[in-house]
Amino acid sequence: MRIVGIDPGLRITGYGCLDVTDGAATLVEAGVFRLGKALNARERDEVEFRVGDAHSISSRLSELDRDFRVMLDRLRPDLVAVEALFAHYKHPATAIVMGHSRGVLLLAIRQMGMKLLEFKPTMVKKSVTGNGLAKKAQVQQAVRAVLGLQEIPEPPDMADALAVAICASRRALLAEIA
Amino acid sequence: MRIVGIDPGLRITGYGCLDVTDGAATLVEAGVFRLGKALNARERDEVEFRVGDAHSISSRLSELDRDFRVMLDRLRPDLVAVEALFAHYKHPATAIVMGHSRGVLLLAIRQMGMKLLEFKPTMVKKSVTGNGLAKKAQVQQAVRAVLGLQEIPEPPDMADALAVAICASRRALLAEIA
Repeated sequence: MRIVGIDPGLRITGYGCLDVTDGAATLVEAGVFRLGKALNARERDEVEFRVGDAHSISSRLSELDRDFRVMLDRLRPDLVAVEALFAHYKHPATAIVMGHSRGVLLLAIRQMGMKLLEFKPTMVKKSVTGNGLAKKAQVQQAVRAVLGLQEIPEPPDMADALAVAICASRRALLAEIA
Repeated sequence: MRIVGIDPGLRITGYGCLDVTDGAATLVEAGVFRLGKALNARERDEVEFRVGDAHSISSRLSELDRDFRVMLDRLRPDLVAVEALFAHYKHPATAIVMGHSRGVLLLAIRQMGMKLLEFKPTMVKKSVTGNGLAKKAQVQQAVRAVLGLQEIPEPPDMADALAVAICASRRALLAEIA
């Protein structure tokens, strides 16, 4: 079974693809889509968005949409797994703009007819590291160990996407949808 | 010149189409797209999103995407105007899920090759009512008066979308893009 994990982010969306056979996961491919600074809302957290941003954001969403569909079309996963949203974001504006990316990704998954599951961040961390509150570096180390990689997966967004895929491969949920 | 105004919302996205000739705006069509309760994040504001929500949201985004494109294709506006995001939302989870809808809408506008402008909510209210902090009912009354409608436009999401279109028709910005 082939699983693609996604970590939808503001400036970077990570993805990681695994093949899972008899419970053993092997890395197929992983990477990131960079959305550029137009989606960096953190710096605007205390100000209103400026006129003209929508145009820039729409341009970058269009790139993300295209690149994401090309990736899914090439890898043809049996399942796409994404991190669930959670309500407590430190930077509301960041989270809203991240929602734009996530909406585009969810729509693409749907329109390509692929199975979609989501997992809470705490569930992903616990599945991969044993600790639901693990730090990013711990997740990276655990992903490296599980997949037998020579190096720490970088950037963390890519490691997080692989962690989502690992979590999905381990969940009993898979039994229902396989 | 034909303008479509959009008020991207969580459960309801309003739209309103005007034809503008010599500074006079006439109503062509207005309405709403309803996204159903899966996009009602307010009730989950203090809890994490549940597993399975992404699937439901993706289904509703797919409906929104389809209906929105059908509308744009039918009305063929010269300009699409949307409300700008602002950072201070009372309900972060609501805002994030609204971001999903807005991302899908911005992508569709882009992919259909249409001109896109955004306006801050305060700018829209000021343009239509003279008061940047006007209440929803005041905006509805002003839209009714400006367009010479017999009744108050309902729901408010539709009135807001018409207000965005009216604001766009009045901005000097139009001179640049007409």
